[in-house]
Amino acid sequence: MLVMFTDFGCHGPYLGQMEAVLRRRAPGIDVIDLLNDAPRTDPRHSAYLLAALARWWPPGTVFLCVVDPGVGGERRAVALEADGKWFVGPDNGLFNTVAVQCISHVDWHEIVWRPPRLSASFHGRDLFAPVAAALATGKGAGLLRPCDAPDLTGWPADLAEIIYLDHYGNAITGLSFRHDWQGRHLQVAGRTIPPARTFSDVAEGEAFWYENSMGLVEIAVNRGSAAAALGLTVGTPVAWG
Amino acid sequence: MLVMFTDFGCHGPYLGQMEAVLRRRAPGIDVIDLLNDAPRTDPRHSAYLLAALARWWPPGTVFLCVVDPGVGGERRAVALEADGKWFVGPDNGLFNTVAVQCISHVDWHEIVWRPPRLSASFHGRDLFAPVAAALATGKGAGLLRPCDAPDLTGWPADLAEIIYLDHYGNAITGLSFRHDWQGRHLQVAGRTIPPARTFSDVAEGEAFWYENSMGLVEIAVNRGSAAAALGLTVGTPVAWG
Amino acid sequence: MLVMFTDFGCHGPYLGQMEAVLRRRAPGIDVIDLLNDAPRTDPRHSAYLLAALARWWPPGTVFLCVVDPGVGGERRAVALEADGKWFVGPDNGLFNTVAVQCISHVDWHEIVWRPPRLSASFHGRDLFAPVAAALATGKGAGLLRPCDAPDLTGWPADLAEIIYLDHYGNAITGLSFRHDWQGRHLQVAGRTIPPARTFSDVAEGEAFWYENSMGLVEIAVNRGSAAAALGLTVGTPVAWG
Repeated sequence: MLVMFTDFGCHGPYLGQMEAVLRRRAPGIDVIDLLNDAPRTDPRHSAYLLAALARWWPPGTVFLCVVDPGVGGERRAVALEADGKWFVGPDNGLFNTVAVQCISHVDWHEIVWRPPRLSASFHGRDLFAPVAAALATGKGAGLLRPCDAPDLTGWPADLAEIIYLDHYGNAITGLSFRHDWQGRHLQVAGRTIPPARTFSDVAEGEAFWYENSMGLVEIAVNRGSAAAALGLTVGTPVAWG
Repeated sequence: MLVMFTDFGCHGPYLGQMEAVLRRRAPGIDVIDLLNDAPRTDPRHSAYLLAALARWWPPGTVFLCVVDPGVGGERRAVALEADGKWFVGPDNGLFNTVAVQCISHVDWHEIVWRPPRLSASFHGRDLFAPVAAALATGKGAGLLRPCDAPDLTGWPADLAEIIYLDHYGNAITGLSFRHDWQGRHLQVAGRTIPPARTFSDVAEGEAFWYENSMGLVEIAVNRGSAAAALGLTVGTPVAWG
Repeated sequence: MLVMFTDFGCHGPYLGQMEAVLRRRAPGIDVIDLLNDAPRTDPRHSAYLLAALARWWPPGTVFLCVVDPGVGGERRAVALEADGKWFVGPDNGLFNTVAVQCISHVDWHEIVWRPPRLSASFHGRDLFAPVAAALATGKGAGLLRPCDAPDLTGWPADLAEIIYLDHYGNAITGLSFRHDWQGRHLQVAGRTIPPARTFSDVAEGEAFWYENSMGLVEIAVNRGSAAAALGLTVGTPVAWG
C-alpha cells in the first residue's frame, strides 16, 4: 500500500499530480491519502504525528511524506526503512521520530536517482513519488545508497506539546500513552485536565484527556472543541500535574 | 461499491485509516468518499441528508456511516438493510430517516462481532469498516444478529429545516420535493422565497428554491451564497407560505 | 486516466457522486481528483489554471471539468480534443485557454447525447461524467458531433492576473514562464517583486517570483503567505516592471 502524508491541504492541485505518478508507476497498488493537513511547513510536529500514525500500518507499507519548506535547497532526499516500512521524503526532521521510536531496526538511505526534469518546488511529484512507487513495486534498489542517520539530538521519543488539532478541535499531543499515566491529571494552558476513557464518559462541554485511537494522549471536550475552549495551538506545551 | 459518509472533515487522519481497512478487506471493490462534512456530531440532520443521497445509489451498495458523538458509550452498533442497500454505523438516529423513507423492506441487525482490539474513540476504523467490508464481500452473515428497530417516533419522513449548507452556500432542506409544491413560496428566516427551475433562470443575486439533484427542496442564490445572504444555518426552520 | 477538475470544494456530496459514475462506467480506469477548488463559479480564471495543469498530463487523458454557474441554462455542453487529450464540460470559457494554447490541433464537439434523467443543476454527474467515461473507454463516438469553436476574442495566451491562491498562500498568475523574463521584476499590488529560483533561495518572510512546477509565474513568500502579506486575490493584475 502507498500512503500519502502531506501538508498540501485537500483542495489544491498538488495531491492529485502526486497520486497520478504513483498510479502510473505502481499500477494495481492501493494509494491512500492518509493526511493532507500535517502542520504546515512544520516538519518537527509533523514528525511526531507521522510516527504515531505509522505504527498502525503493516510492514511493507510505503509512506510518501511531503512537509518540505526547504524544497530545492540543500536538504537531502532520503528513504528510511524502519520496522519493515518505508518512508520517502525530505531529510528535514520529518522522519526523526520514526527513527527514534523504531523498535527493531532502521536503515537510512539517500536518494541518488534524479528524474530527467526536476522542478525546483515540487520534489513530491518529481522525485519522491517515483521513488516511493519504485519501492512499492520492488524496483527501488538502484535509486538509493546507504547514508548516515541525521543528528537525533533534541528528538525525544515523546514530545510534551500539542502536535495537531483535528477537525473537531481535539488536541493531540506528542506523548505516547503509558499505563502508569492512568489516573493522572494533565496541565495545559493554565488548566488541569482530568482523565476519562472516552467522550461519552464525561458531561457535555467537559474537558478530559484520554488515549486516542493512535495511542497518543489527546485533550478533548465532549461535543465541543478543546482547541477553542482552552486556546490550544500546535506547539502549546503540556505537563503532568 | 463501498461508500463512506462521515463528519470527519477532509483533512485529518481518520478517513484514510478507514479507507485502508476497506481496501485491505474488500480488495477490488471501489471505495467512494461520498461526503465527509456531514453536520458535525449531529446524527439527526445527517440522517436526512444520508437518506436523500442514498436513493441515487443502486442496490448492493454498502454505506459506511460515521457521525458518532457517542462512540465508546452505550449506543448499539448496527447494520441496516433497506431497499437492498446496507448501512453500517452507530444506532444514534443516523439511519432512522433511511428506515422511515424505505419503500420496500427494512431489516435491522445488531453488530455482535468485536475486533481483537477496539479503540474507545474510533469504531469507524475498528468495528464499522471491517463489517462494511465483510458485507460488501458477502461474508457478513456471522457478524450480525437481527434486532428491534429503534423508536422512530419524532422522525417524520420530511424535516422542515435546513439540514446542510454546501460549499457554494446553497441551503438544503429535509423536504423531499413533491409536484404539488410546484409554484408555491417557501418561508425561511423571515423571507419569502419564490420557486425557479435552476440558477440560470433567475437574476444574479436573487434567491429562489428548487428541486436539487438529490430530489430535495434547496434554497439558493444565483452566483451568491444563500447561507450568507439569508443567514441560514443547519436547523433553521422552513415552511410553505 | 480520468481526471476531475471542479470548483466543488472537497467536502460535499458532489465529487463522490461524479466519481461513482466514472467508476461504474469506466471500470479499471484510474480516477484522479486533480483539483476541487478552482476559482468558484469563475470559468475565466479556472481556464488558465486548467490549461497549465493539463500540459503535464499525457495524451489520452480525459479531463472532466465542472465550473458551471450557468448549469441548466443555454450554454452548450462540449467535448474538446486538444493535443491528444479530451476535455468534457460546459462551453462557458472553461476550455478557451486550452484551445488558445494548443500546440498541434484542436477539435470542438458538442455533446448531443442526453441521459434518460437530467437534473437541472448537476450536469457534472448526469451528463459530463457519462460522456467522459465513454471517451475514456473508447465508446464516445455516437455521443458527439463536430461543432464550431466559441469566439476566442479576448482570450490571450497569457493572462496577466492572479488566477489561483494555493493552500500556502502562494499566488499563481496566468503567465506561462518564458526565459526572456529571467531576472526581471514583477509589479503587483503596488509592490516590486524580485525573481528567485525557489523558496530556500530567499530569506524567511521575503517575497519573490519564480517559475512554479506547472510552468507558471508564481508569487510566493518564503515560509509565509504571499496572499496575506501582499493582499492578493484572484483577479489582481500583475505587470513586468
